[in-house]
Amino acid sequence: MAEPVLILVRPQMGENIGAAARAMWNFGLSRMRVVGPRDGWPNERAVALASGAGRVLDAAGVFDTVAAAIADCDMVLATTARPRGLTKEIVSPERAGEIARAFGAEGKRVGILFGPERAGLENAEIVQADAIVSVPVNPDFPSLNLAQCVLLIAYEWQRAGGAVEPSVMEMAGTDFAGAAEIAALGDHYEGRLDEAGFFFPDSKAPGMKMTLRNMWSRLPLTRADVQTFHGILRQMVRWKDRG
Amino acid sequence: MAEPVLILVRPQMGENIGAAARAMWNFGLSRMRVVGPRDGWPNERAVALASGAGRVLDAAGVFDTVAAAIADCDMVLATTARPRGLTKEIVSPERAGEIARAFGAEGKRVGILFGPERAGLENAEIVQADAIVSVPVNPDFPSLNLAQCVLLIAYEWQRAGGAVEPSVMEMAGTDFAGAAEIAALGDHYEGRLDEAGFFFPDSKAPGMKMTLRNMWSRLPLTRADVQTFHGILRQMVRWKDRG
Repeated sequence: MAEPVLILVRPQMGENIGAAARAMWNFGLSRMRVVGPRDGWPNERAVALASGAGRVLDAAGVFDTVAAAIADCDMVLATTARPRGLTKEIVSPERAGEIARAFGAEGKRVGILFGPERAGLENAEIVQADAIVSVPVNPDFPSLNLAQCVLLIAYEWQRAGGAVEPSVMEMAGTDFAGAAEIAALGDHYEGRLDEAGFFFPDSKAPGMKMTLRNMWSRLPLTRADVQTFHGILRQMVRWKDRG
Repeated sequence: MAEPVLILVRPQMGENIGAAARAMWNFGLSRMRVVGPRDGWPNERAVALASGAGRVLDAAGVFDTVAAAIADCDMVLATTARPRGLTKEIVSPERAGEIARAFGAEGKRVGILFGPERAGLENAEIVQADAIVSVPVNPDFPSLNLAQCVLLIAYEWQRAGGAVEPSVMEMAGTDFAGAAEIAALGDHYEGRLDEAGFFFPDSKAPGMKMTLRNMWSRLPLTRADVQTFHGILRQMVRWKDRG
């Protein structure tokens, strides 16, 4: 699985370079390239801001031009807030993640270009890309910064990895109560509540009991929950018995 | 379409509050609430950083406690990097976006909790949520900051604007109990069970109470279920009182 290369073009603030490194490493991406960084390289502010993600900066390659930075890439995507009349396929961040995964699985290198903070990529740079990635931001406030844009792309790359949803794993590991335990809980409550006069008037008792049984079986009760509910009822009965 | 409410709990740096406002507005979200902001409210640094997204701060509600901030919410999600041994459903940011859309389409209010910068949400706060949202970050570098976490949730809300799974719609159509109703149910049981001597020994009482609170908020209780549980407890007390 080849990782995509994230290419920062003419980045200005070291802080933003550092934040981009962090955003990449948050989702397991470590291959950065930098084209013509305004303040030279290495950049102290970038290193300071990258803290735990310094390895990304240490391994970054520095290039003079976009052409040089993408020369060994099999597929190039250019991120831009506003496609500017260039006839080129526009893909979502989600699709970009899928493309990066699919090419990576074939051992191919995907390069993803990010423009400088204010101006963005120039048309002459965008035309070198196979497709444009556009984040569907609020048209009234399309102000994503560099590190945020990197974060969303890295997030989508991670998401396209097809990792099993944590919720599924977690739920699969939960110790849910079996049907017999639920039935026993239903018996316990029905019996005690009958003694306590809960099912009143008599004419409504069958429906009330059905509703209660249904509730116990519908709720996703764990074994521990079932013990808690038994314990609550037993304690209330003890309280009564103590008078 | 009701918008979800993003709730910042005890945020520290004004910069981060401002950046969170920007991240929300980037994806068209404007409803923020703040619980116990460290530096008071309004916060000048937040306003300065929010530039263009100041409207989000202007309209933000300020609350003393998480319970007060979520009282009118029909569904509550808690973002946390590391679920801490609480049995509660864990959903992905994508799923959180779908839930917020589906409930919003029914005119229901979804509250999403974000903890303070370093410490994150406390367990006593997490247990008040219906489910946990966990961003699947690099386990070697799980360092998302507040505004980044807000950005990803807002992005997923935006992305979920398309079709939403019918199963989620169905869930949103159920008359689930709101956070205030769940809190009141928790109060009722905790109070009566305390009188009944359920929380024994004293050293274990806080943990037992937390577990019970977590169970109430985790179970998908309908309004009718909540009434049933109140009724059960009232009846048991009446039974005791009759001697």
